[in-house]
Amino acid sequence: METTAGRGIVDRVQELALNSDSPQHYTRTYLTPAHRAAARAIAKWMREAGMRVREDAVGSVIGRYDASVAGARTLLMGSHFDSVRNGGKFDGVLGILVPIACVAELHRRGERLAHAIEVAAFSDEEGARFQTSFLASRALVDGTASVAGLLQRRDAEGVALGDAMREAGLDAARADADRLDPSTLAAYVELHIEQGPVLLDEGRALGVVTSIAAGLRYLVRVKGEAGHAGTVPMPRRRDALAAAAEMVVAIERRCSAGGSLVGTVGVLRVKDGTANVIAGDVEFTVDIRAADGAAHLAAARDALAECEAIAKRRGVALECTKTHEVANAPCAPWLQDLIAASIERTIPGEAARRLPSGAGHDAMILARVTDVGMMFVRCGAGGVSHNPAETVSVEDAELAYRALLDFVRAFRR
Amino acid sequence: METTAGRGIVDRVQELALNSDSPQHYTRTYLTPAHRAAARAIAKWMREAGMRVREDAVGSVIGRYDASVAGARTLLMGSHFDSVRNGGKFDGVLGILVPIACVAELHRRGERLAHAIEVAAFSDEEGARFQTSFLASRALVDGTASVAGLLQRRDAEGVALGDAMREAGLDAARADADRLDPSTLAAYVELHIEQGPVLLDEGRALGVVTSIAAGLRYLVRVKGEAGHAGTVPMPRRRDALAAAAEMVVAIERRCSAGGSLVGTVGVLRVKDGTANVIAGDVEFTVDIRAADGAAHLAAARDALAECEAIAKRRGVALECTKTHEVANAPCAPWLQDLIAASIERTIPGEAARRLPSGAGHDAMILARVTDVGMMFVRCGAGGVSHNPAETVSVEDAELAYRALLDFVRAFRR
Repeated sequence: METTAGRGIVDRVQELALNSDSPQHYTRTYLTPAHRAAARAIAKWMREAGMRVREDAVGSVIGRYDASVAGARTLLMGSHFDSVRNGGKFDGVLGILVPIACVAELHRRGERLAHAIEVAAFSDEEGARFQTSFLASRALVDGTASVAGLLQRRDAEGVALGDAMREAGLDAARADADRLDPSTLAAYVELHIEQGPVLLDEGRALGVVTSIAAGLRYLVRVKGEAGHAGTVPMPRRRDALAAAAEMVVAIERRCSAGGSLVGTVGVLRVKDGTANVIAGDVEFTVDIRAADGAAHLAAARDALAECEAIAKRRGVALECTKTHEVANAPCAPWLQDLIAASIERTIPGEAARRLPSGAGHDAMILARVTDVGMMFVRCGAGGVSHNPAETVSVEDAELAYRALLDFVRAFRR
Repeated sequence: METTAGRGIVDRVQELALNSDSPQHYTRTYLTPAHRAAARAIAKWMREAGMRVREDAVGSVIGRYDASVAGARTLLMGSHFDSVRNGGKFDGVLGILVPIACVAELHRRGERLAHAIEVAAFSDEEGARFQTSFLASRALVDGTASVAGLLQRRDAEGVALGDAMREAGLDAARADADRLDPSTLAAYVELHIEQGPVLLDEGRALGVVTSIAAGLRYLVRVKGEAGHAGTVPMPRRRDALAAAAEMVVAIERRCSAGGSLVGTVGVLRVKDGTANVIAGDVEFTVDIRAADGAAHLAAARDALAECEAIAKRRGVALECTKTHEVANAPCAPWLQDLIAASIERTIPGEAARRLPSGAGHDAMILARVTDVGMMFVRCGAGGVSHNPAETVSVEDAELAYRALLDFVRAFRR
């Protein structure tokens, strides 16, 4: 198989990853110098692909390739270019670079389609710096209101989000003017690395997403009593860390009930933690998801009830705040069928695999205003993601490019 | 009960606590401006109590009150005047200010005893700034060698210990000359807030320490595999935080076997922790102590074996480093009896309570060269210590003063 396009895409993924907040590993968070540099590189590649480029109020980069006729509706594609800390280079970025490569090919051939194409490079989806999930796609869909409440949030160095935006020359108040007009949209399609092991385990390069998982996120705070590690007898302790540890184990157990249900405690902090001091104040996050139905709701209810029972038994106080809730977002059946047909033409001989997405994606936000579809690309290295080992092969990048190019050409609405 | 002496001691505790590294809470770490100011205040109070005062090579302040005859041996008393971060005001300081008050009373009456008295205010015991436990008492006992290896250590701002000493006009090389001559010592006696709830629970003001706990400290690192919180099925995970949480619970359970055994995980850090990322790298501290015998050794062996079993079952890697080990220091029975007799004369009608110390004290270091004894003073506020709520009542300070004054007068060796 000729893999020039796939090679070019993987090379750009590697090149873009050099724009990192840290020289040791790949981390690119909202509005850091590395993040701004990545935005400029993406804009340059969009222009080289024949697109007109604009930056929106929150720093997303959007390229437009007009249709053959004026007034045609727009097929919007895209994903995000921020990352988690010490993350994987393909997460998000692949869903920007593959569409750019497709448009570049249309441009090279002088080919215009019956619909306009826009590629959106969302500036903040992971939200690792300011704890702001989906900031950029929310701003594009909901406008200023979705950002206004976040401007006081501070990063770990104490920098406010509002100040970081001003520093970058961005103006949250402009987000209303930059909002999508849903009447101009034909659909939103997002290509993304699977970030899990399903396609890898089954030996398939590409898949069609059926639905994006519903998710709940909580911040749990456990308050016990600080004390001297040598002098307080075990039965008298109200150890916030031991209590939190028991809760973490209980949450994991409840979320191991099977199906698409998953539960994760990814952050746990001990306030003023010292080796010879009993912890008095601990907080941790809980993330519970299920791709289908309401399994996550029952699991969250049970897990939090178990945390409360543990807190009561140990005499520690528990505060539990829901920080994030998203309903599951089904992908439109007609888009699933179009994407499946393109995959089947690109990789003949097998029906395209349809699978749910456990990860959240910008498509969940876009689903509020238009039909959404997603194509998954096989995740190498055992299926790990949000991890430096995350990878997509050149061959799979080539197949993703070919299937997406087939899709945009076949797309009709 | 007349409580003039107790009131004076508590007032001085409060006054000394104004010398703090932070205006918000009480923190006094080695060689900061607040620490140097506290040393000057202590020296002044010693001189007012009729003592000759010297500063040793590491900034400890030592006051001397001569015996009635030349050549008599010295009863050394003392404790430390540094603190943990956001600590309690009585920890250490009480064991300096009560002996000074006793000497002041002898001096006021023109009373000389058959032994000399020295009061040592140790400059660094908690070691919060440079991670140097017992630096000052080690220097006094072991001389320059005990400090030389620490001079390159840096605080959180990058200041080297050696530079901080030079800045303060101290010279570690002088520590050999300032070393204690054990042949001149009769004993070392330390008065200290209990830092636990035993005396409080039993309604007793004072106690006699039988032994200072042996302790082991470890740094445990758990390495799993980072991954996406939404996409990796539960059975495929190698979650370092869930594994660590199970270990924390196991350590707590094993160290709850009774007796004087205690076990604490006070620090737990999730490297690059993010709410939607499965933790790949976690480290935590383990502190295991027992006042009597080898219970801590068996507990540490079992707890670490259990951690290894958990790691193996979960497919995560475990690294365990011993960071601290001290043998237990028994208090000399003859000193226990003298201290008990003084308590019983001060608070008639009950036999003095004898109890082990779960906390480490400078007495552990002095025990290498002389017999040691300790008197505990009841800890108010539920028995909390290393905590801003730590407190000693005026009445208890008065009783401590009276019992210690009785002790120094009755002391014979």
